[in-house]
This record gives sequence, C-alpha cells and structure tokens, in this order.
Amino acid sequence: TDAEAVAAARARDAVLTKPPGALGRLEDLAAWYAGWRGVATPRVERPQVIVFAGNHGVTAKGVSAFPPEVTVQMVANFEAGGAAINQLALDANAYLEVVPLALNRPTADFTEGPAMSPPEAAEALAAGWQSVHERADLLVVGEMGIGNTTAAAALATALIGGDGWAGRGTGLDDAGLSRKAEIVAEAASRHAGLSPLDTLAALGGREIAAMAGAIARARHLRIPVVLDGFICCAAALVLHEVNPAALDHCVAGHRSAEAAHARLLEHLGKAPLLDLGLRLGEGSGAALAIHVVRAACACHSGMATFAEAGVSEG
Amino acid sequence: TDAEAVAAARARDAVLTKPPGALGRLEDLAAWYAGWRGVATPRVERPQVIVFAGNHGVTAKGVSAFPPEVTVQMVANFEAGGAAINQLALDANAYLEVVPLALNRPTADFTEGPAMSPPEAAEALAAGWQSVHERADLLVVGEMGIGNTTAAAALATALIGGDGWAGRGTGLDDAGLSRKAEIVAEAASRHAGLSPLDTLAALGGREIAAMAGAIARARHLRIPVVLDGFICCAAALVLHEVNPAALDHCVAGHRSAEAAHARLLEHLGKAPLLDLGLRLGEGSGAALAIHVVRAACACHSGMATFAEAGVSEG
Repeated sequence: TDAEAVAAARARDAVLTKPPGALGRLEDLAAWYAGWRGVATPRVERPQVIVFAGNHGVTAKGVSAFPPEVTVQMVANFEAGGAAINQLALDANAYLEVVPLALNRPTADFTEGPAMSPPEAAEALAAGWQSVHERADLLVVGEMGIGNTTAAAALATALIGGDGWAGRGTGLDDAGLSRKAEIVAEAASRHAGLSPLDTLAALGGREIAAMAGAIARARHLRIPVVLDGFICCAAALVLHEVNPAALDHCVAGHRSAEAAHARLLEHLGKAPLLDLGLRLGEGSGAALAIHVVRAACACHSGMATFAEAGVSEG
Repeated sequence: TDAEAVAAARARDAVLTKPPGALGRLEDLAAWYAGWRGVATPRVERPQVIVFAGNHGVTAKGVSAFPPEVTVQMVANFEAGGAAINQLALDANAYLEVVPLALNRPTADFTEGPAMSPPEAAEALAAGWQSVHERADLLVVGEMGIGNTTAAAALATALIGGDGWAGRGTGLDDAGLSRKAEIVAEAASRHAGLSPLDTLAALGGREIAAMAGAIARARHLRIPVVLDGFICCAAALVLHEVNPAALDHCVAGHRSAEAAHARLLEHLGKAPLLDLGLRLGEGSGAALAIHVVRAACACHSGMATFAEAGVSEG
C-alpha cells in the first residue's frame, strides 16, 4: 500500500465538511482504498465480479441438500442472467464474468485421497490469476459448486484446527449436518500437516483454488478485493496461512449466515461491512458491499472542504 | 400494505434460483416493499432524499460543538453539491431536495418555553408533507440543524422516559455532554405530559416536524421510507407514539454511532440494515441503505425461477 496516498487521504478527510469521524467506517475504507490505488482522491469505476464454478467428488457422500448437477445448471443460469449475482452485479454497475472449471471432471473425493493433484491445483490457481482484469479497480470473487461448503470447512479445520467448521450450507437437516461434520473431521485428519498450498490441493476445489489465485493476482495489480462468504474466505485463508499480510488489500464484504463464517472472519482479522443474513455464495454479499466501498470513495473524493464551502469548523 | 402483493412476492421468492432463505434480509425487504407498492415484482427507480434544515434556540445554551451559523452554511454546501449527502444521493441515483425552514427565525429556547407555537409546528409539518414527490418510490428524510440532537434527545426523554438520551452529537466533550444531559432532562420535565404532537411543538425543531410530516405523507402515498439516524428516528417516534403502526412503511437504514440511537430503534421495533459507525445526519446512512433496498428488489424481480432456468430444486 502507498503510505503517502493514505496520509494524503487522511489529511483530506480531516478538512471535509463533516464532524471528524462522522462517516465512521466509510472514512477508513476510503483511506484504505486510496492506499491500494495510490491515489488520494480515488473513485470506484470498474468493479469486476468473477464467479468460479467447480464440482466436488465429495458430493458422493451426500453432503449437500442439492444434487451435484446443479453446479452446471447454475452456470447456465449465470450465463442467461437469471441468478442473484447477475442482478447484484448489474445493480452495482460491475462487470460479471463466469469461469466454469472442468465441471465434467469433479475433484476426487477427498475422504479417499487428495481432491486435486498438484498440477490440477496449479491449473486452477492460474485460471483465477488470469481472470482478473488488470484495469479493474475493485474485485469480488464468488463461487458456485455443490459440495463446496464441505471443502471449505475441511480447509478451515486443517489450517486453523478445532471443530464446528461444518455448517448447513444450502440447507442440510440435522442428520446431514452431523454426517458432514464427520466427513470434514475425517478428511482434515487424513490430510493433516501439509503446507497451506498442499492443503488447498488436498481438500479444496478448483473454484476455491481459482479464488485464491485471483485474490493474489489482485494484490499484484493493487486492486482492492471485497471478500464474500465462507467459501471465499476459505480460499483467502490459504493465502493468509502462507503470509498473514497477504490479505491486506482485502475487506470483508459481509458476515454470512453460514455458521462458521464469523469465526473465520475473526481468524482473518476482518470486520464485515454488511450483516444481512445472506448465505448464497456466488459473490452475492461482496457484490452488495461494492456499493459501500464506492460510496466511501464518492464521499471522500467528492465532498467540499470547510475552506471551499465557507463552513465554520467546530 | 397490500397482503396480496406480499403473498405473491413470498410465493415468487420460494421458487427463485437460490436455496430458501439464502438472501436473508433481502427477501423480507423485497416482500415488505412489494406490499407497500402493491406490486409483486417491484423495482426501486425513483428514490427521493429530502434534507430539512432548521435552527434551534437552545443552541444559546452551548449544547453543540459547532456554532449555529453552520446550519445556513451547510445548506449552502448542500446547494453547491459539496456535502456528504450530495455524494451519497448521486451515488444512489436519488433525487435530492434541500428544504431550509425559516433559518433566520430559530425556534425558541425550549428551556424557557415551547420551541414552536402550534401554528409554527403545523407549518413545519405541512412543509414536510408537501415536500414528498408523489411519484417517488422510496423516501429518505434527513436533516441539518445545529442543536438538533438536543431537541431529539428531549423528545425521546419526554415521549419514552428514562435518561441517557443525550449524546455527543457532532462531538461534544465530557463537560458539554453533561451540560446537554441536564438541559435535556430539565426541558423534558418542563414540557411533560403533553400529547405526542404537542411534545413535538414544545421540544422539536422545524426540521424534525417536517420529517414527521414527510414520513406521514409517504405512508399516504404508499412510498416506503428508509429511516436515518437519531434525529430522524426522533421525528418518527412522534408518529409512533400517536400510533405504533404508523411506521410500518419504514425500515431502519442504519444504526448511528450517536449513542442513544440503538435504544431508540429498539423502542421503534426496527432492526437497522447497516451498522457502519456513521453519525452525520443529512440522511446519509439512509441514503446508503437505498442500495440495499434496491438490490433486494432487483434480486427478487430479476431472478429466474427454478422452472425458467431448468435448475433442480434441493
């Protein structure tokens, strides 16, 4: 981040026509965004939303309330403009891209072996890396993949430890939830002790690896990222475990209703911008939070100073 | 509200391409909005933001961190486009109107007598009533008025009871805060036992009365309202004390950092959409929340159903 741009943004904020601190988190957001863009009066003009889709061998174990063919059906829905993320991206004036990743070749069932081979994981990471548009000025990464809250929970269990990371996903009943929790615990212990990237290969999915690749690429391009829910944050977790500073260019878009998301955000040290009970994935909560980041920059860069407006300071 | 439109919206929500409940509060918002508009698939297309400004005699008692001439200075800033609300209204694609109310004639100091005579209060209510555009489809009312957190706190004290309603406003220090708390307590007890509307005249300000008038008018026109912070909610409180159902067409836009706002929202039975530490007034938090209401309607009305998209239900 650009310390000079942050300092200039902070100095400007102090003389804008409002009581100091009166815009709350919008003030911090604008300064953070200014730092990553290297501009004291930035605007959000070209947000990009990328939805990665992948299929998961672990669905054979009955871990989802929806059948695995829904992944490809929902990709068609994204392409036809019918999903929630289509409406939210349009509403946020964001460019939406959908990247299906080898949907006819699900990952291996990680209760039996690693989900992906190292080359498969590298390919998915690279797909994410390459999907980020270098002229984007804000990035949301989202996902679709029946079974992927199981993969995300397994990643959190392996990388952070403890239990309780499995949640209801798209709507499991109690019996389904306890089966899922067992599968997650078993998979995490089977693939324990690996490096973060090898854990990603062993337990993740292609869409999770791709989100990690895109988040890393965004940092390289100084594009701030709005993190979405549990699965997106599990992807971010992999980078965080490699280097805790790797997510400094990321803000948490929302707190998902998926139970373990709040705990994962706490581990990442991120306070969510929104808390509206969403638990859809697709990047939906983060896409909604684009409005908050854009509004923060609009206030910061568009407001008059006390001197410009002839307003008396307190 | 139109029960048929609500039922149709709920029925539609149940077959949209997402797990049931996965859009959290957005689902409830869309159904609520559909009910007030009487349309099963509504869109937010013409939001109106009105900022009312008034001056307060009680500023003579030193209750604000800013001098009273800032009210008129900020109105000029609104008119020149330099304030936070200008940026937020523009960003939310909302039509912004600024209504200064007799700024050269502050209300009387309510520690000495009623702030407004009954005809003055009626005139301010009518100004609010008349400011709502009948073709608007979402309304935000905001305010500017040095000293008006004192008036709002006095209203809450008189109408709800208890103490602790006085807060730091634009940034009072500890000594200022305790002076303000004393003034609020004294004024509320001086003007105790009146009807809600007479309490409004005795302790309110013109901008507070105007907000109450606008909120009432919006209900008449079936225009849903997004409530802003402490002062806006004090205006809404007057209507609520007349009839608790009078605010059914209102949603709480945000929780302000002004300390007593959360408590006031609780009294009104409203859960805020946003909680970003704003405490600026001007309608700022509510204007930001326009995005949430619009996004809720966009998802609800724009998404494909399972049948339309050929997606398997869970």
